[in-house]
Amino acid sequence: MHWVLPLIVVLTAAATGARAEGPVLSGTATGGFVLSSDNAGTEVTALSEIDMRIAGAGQSDGGLTFGAFLEIDEKATAEAEVFLSGAFGTFSVGTVDPATDGFGIADPGFSGLGIDDIAEQFRNATTGADVAYTFSQGGFTLRASAEIGGAQSLGVAAEYASGSFRFGLGYADDTDAANSAVSVTAGYSFGAVAVGGLYSDWSGGGQGYGLDVTVDTGPATVTAVWAQSRGVEADPEAGVGEAYGIGLTVPLSGGLSLSGGLGRIDTDALPDGPRTVADFGVTMSF
Amino acid sequence: MHWVLPLIVVLTAAATGARAEGPVLSGTATGGFVLSSDNAGTEVTALSEIDMRIAGAGQSDGGLTFGAFLEIDEKATAEAEVFLSGAFGTFSVGTVDPATDGFGIADPGFSGLGIDDIAEQFRNATTGADVAYTFSQGGFTLRASAEIGGAQSLGVAAEYASGSFRFGLGYADDTDAANSAVSVTAGYSFGAVAVGGLYSDWSGGGQGYGLDVTVDTGPATVTAVWAQSRGVEADPEAGVGEAYGIGLTVPLSGGLSLSGGLGRIDTDALPDGPRTVADFGVTMSF
Amino acid sequence: MHWVLPLIVVLTAAATGARAEGPVLSGTATGGFVLSSDNAGTEVTALSEIDMRIAGAGQSDGGLTFGAFLEIDEKATAEAEVFLSGAFGTFSVGTVDPATDGFGIADPGFSGLGIDDIAEQFRNATTGADVAYTFSQGGFTLRASAEIGGAQSLGVAAEYASGSFRFGLGYADDTDAANSAVSVTAGYSFGAVAVGGLYSDWSGGGQGYGLDVTVDTGPATVTAVWAQSRGVEADPEAGVGEAYGIGLTVPLSGGLSLSGGLGRIDTDALPDGPRTVADFGVTMSF
Repeated sequence: MHWVLPLIVVLTAAATGARAEGPVLSGTATGGFVLSSDNAGTEVTALSEIDMRIAGAGQSDGGLTFGAFLEIDEKATAEAEVFLSGAFGTFSVGTVDPATDGFGIADPGFSGLGIDDIAEQFRNATTGADVAYTFSQGGFTLRASAEIGGAQSLGVAAEYASGSFRFGLGYADDTDAANSAVSVTAGYSFGAVAVGGLYSDWSGGGQGYGLDVTVDTGPATVTAVWAQSRGVEADPEAGVGEAYGIGLTVPLSGGLSLSGGLGRIDTDALPDGPRTVADFGVTMSF
Repeated sequence: MHWVLPLIVVLTAAATGARAEGPVLSGTATGGFVLSSDNAGTEVTALSEIDMRIAGAGQSDGGLTFGAFLEIDEKATAEAEVFLSGAFGTFSVGTVDPATDGFGIADPGFSGLGIDDIAEQFRNATTGADVAYTFSQGGFTLRASAEIGGAQSLGVAAEYASGSFRFGLGYADDTDAANSAVSVTAGYSFGAVAVGGLYSDWSGGGQGYGLDVTVDTGPATVTAVWAQSRGVEADPEAGVGEAYGIGLTVPLSGGLSLSGGLGRIDTDALPDGPRTVADFGVTMSF
Repeated sequence: MHWVLPLIVVLTAAATGARAEGPVLSGTATGGFVLSSDNAGTEVTALSEIDMRIAGAGQSDGGLTFGAFLEIDEKATAEAEVFLSGAFGTFSVGTVDPATDGFGIADPGFSGLGIDDIAEQFRNATTGADVAYTFSQGGFTLRASAEIGGAQSLGVAAEYASGSFRFGLGYADDTDAANSAVSVTAGYSFGAVAVGGLYSDWSGGGQGYGLDVTVDTGPATVTAVWAQSRGVEADPEAGVGEAYGIGLTVPLSGGLSLSGGLGRIDTDALPDGPRTVADFGVTMSF
């Protein structure tokens, strides 16, 4: 019997070591078909997106956690970040998101039909970010981001979540381009139903706002989204106007889901008038 | 003793979990030297090719298998596919091959000397593919491929293999470019000897055909290949003419092989007349 | 008890198999801030660098070891090599370094402030490399490298290390560009102090030389570097002149280090006069 206990110790050590010592892999993938009504002759196209992540992490003295990851997609490296975490919060450097980038509404379909973009185009003003800071405590999360060097911008966001309620207030300021945005987001869930909303006011003279409603029926989740922009567009591809859509997701076991969406986008960015968009496909994670 | 059995159960679960939960790595690599007689002053060059694959897969309800992979080479992401499998067959989206792309003859050498290209340039007509379907049962395999969206094309192939015999018939149709190809492939093995052949007739006015003979002597495999094209070339780099070559592969243990090839290509695509090609190197898999 | 021993055998086999059969991951990352005094308005920038390596290896008959690796960074594949090792030494093909590329002095800071470049610009002449050979025995290491094909160059280096002393002599010859370089490097350590130096004489009419001193104080390592170039520059970005700097590295546990450096570069490659450079950040390995 004295063989067995040391063996368990060795095995546990090996299992722990494997996670702590070498980078680990994870990934997501989607595949399916996308329809866009204004693509003359080629309305339906096949689409696949694969993201594989190589992530390394470790722990150091004094409760410091550190790590880095690369995310590789169909073309090349897509994301790369380095982080350092502790009681003080988490600092990140790399392809980080502006502090207000998480303020958003749902986008129906497996591929993202772009309904949400009409409302979300103002939330970050025209900022980017290369460093970020996050601190969370008791349902409260503070985020700050900055772009330093070539371009210069700042972002800050405060979010609070408690049980079925969440609220966020954010500010983005592009120092070089001299424009800024204030955004408010909120959400509430009651039973199987969840609603969320976003309002952004951009100093460039545009406003964006939208709502989403999600109903989890058990075997499927239904999401309805409405988005509108007014004034001057911040993103020429999104434009000024309105969009709405509905999506259905059926989760199967093992990390596989079937997903489809249908929507309509009517903005001044579309030269051929309103566009009908739809998709159907699978999403998976490993 | 009651320690040991639970331990085995835990170990088995862990081993299974590791495969099911995270993407896994595999890879191949080649390295060596390549000679091409018409590279003035620099006939011999060093060549290395490395492909590492990150593949995720899982199983879902009702016998569904799903997965995705990225293949990364010396430059960037080279291949990316998402698949969904079941009793109905396998659907794939991404950088898939046309249905007739597997119709081919051997190419001698560790690096692929390009002997086979002279015969194979017509098999896919001028089609590509972004979705594919495969169904196999009882030695019979059906493949279909399509390019949808920007360019439009179709492919279909039926293959049968039984013991020492294999046969395939395929059709490729480029809808946009209005050309198509019919191809036939067959193979037969008797003892240590295997022969194979390909014939393609392209509506653009060209025909390609070729033969390979492989002899497995035990410590080494010898492959001889002959290829010819007639009429109008489908691939300007291959051209119209003839090519032949011979290759030797010595498999060592552990996934390592030594490989070398020697060939001659004589087509109208070569401005300086017939080209002698040769290579010698190693291939490995992990 | 007869359950346990076979179990251990299986486990050992599985553990060995996992390393031998599939590629493995490793990685390094750095993140922090870099200051350069002549970047008007944007002296300080954020910097992160991540390198993840996918490496496969195996063993074959007769003591042959083989393998290949890809190194992926924030943009794409950065390094790719295939190697074959045995009693004869190691042959490598791919993005290998010239034989004299390891002749160098330290560069202070987490990001490499470039102090060493002033002295090191001559060591490889203007050569590159795509094949390399290394043989080591009894403290003696012989390296050879070559560029064959498009460009042609050669490199050879002999190094000897014994206890606290190391010495190297190298030669690089760019056949196409008709220039060459001879380099000498040496190092000596006594207790916590190590000194190193480099001298290169380039046939293009330039000389580079430098010294580094490293003191390991226990909780931290301090490195001081001085570099000078004379005559004609081999690297227009480095130029002719002088540079010096000092760096501090504090290793924490788990593979994490804090690192900072401060330096001054004064060469004719700087249009706005001498440049002050500094950085502060973390380095980590997984």
